[in-house]
Amino acid sequence: MSTLPVLLTAALIAGQPRAGVDAFNQALADATRRMDDSAIVALWEPDGVSLLPSTRPIVGRAAIAAFVTSVTSGLKGARMTRYDQGCHDVEIAGDTATEWCVEHQVVALADGSTFDGWGKLLLVLHRGADGRWRLRREMWNQAAAADSSALR
Amino acid sequence: MSTLPVLLTAALIAGQPRAGVDAFNQALADATRRMDDSAIVALWEPDGVSLLPSTRPIVGRAAIAAFVTSVTSGLKGARMTRYDQGCHDVEIAGDTATEWCVEHQVVALADGSTFDGWGKLLLVLHRGADGRWRLRREMWNQAAAADSSALR
Repeated sequence: MSTLPVLLTAALIAGQPRAGVDAFNQALADATRRMDDSAIVALWEPDGVSLLPSTRPIVGRAAIAAFVTSVTSGLKGARMTRYDQGCHDVEIAGDTATEWCVEHQVVALADGSTFDGWGKLLLVLHRGADGRWRLRREMWNQAAAADSSALR
Repeated sequence: MSTLPVLLTAALIAGQPRAGVDAFNQALADATRRMDDSAIVALWEPDGVSLLPSTRPIVGRAAIAAFVTSVTSGLKGARMTRYDQGCHDVEIAGDTATEWCVEHQVVALADGSTFDGWGKLLLVLHRGADGRWRLRREMWNQAAAADSSALR
């Protein structure tokens, strides 16, 4: 796209909070599916907090970037063959949005084995001065079982 | 307390969002420490969602009440000897508040053994028409390790 349509799209999204959250969710799914470190980190606010199991709270975009890099560098040669995500009960209050999601990922590992996992996310988003929604807080835990209906 | 001081306190809390969230946190800690099912359930909104590890999303106060009862009925004779909780980064947007907490619980079980566990919480609260804050969404996962500094 040239610059003008991009700016128009951004302006449109800024004026429609729910559309902006949907755009965030799509960007999160795309970045995760591609295992694209810099695209994932760009979805975070500078003072975001990530709360992962058996891990100390990861506070701030720099610490989150270091963590993401450490995870993907431990997965050299891996490729995500599938990532699906369904987010529910989006609620928006001013520049704050919350939602919970169910995700399913399938990763082909370098040794030929496959990781197939299901998880849940609780997300708090914040809308920046540019109208874009970014992650402010995230927590993840394991899902109970495969549940394709929750991915819609 | 007689009725008037209670009403005055409620009015005061309703007018001071942060004080209301602090009061919620205190009530959550007290109810958890006492393992008081009905007090815990009363802290939830009717359409609250609890997201626990390896568990399907628990949606609605009735389902949450049934879950709490199932947990405590499996813990007959147990007593929580210690519960500490530190909540961080309280942010309030209108009638929505978010915060993340670290908790430490020590439970004396009926068989004489002790459960000593640390966890993290991501909470979304909503302020009702009565001015009180209640749980709208909660997620829990395991903490990395004992971290007393996070309990303050």
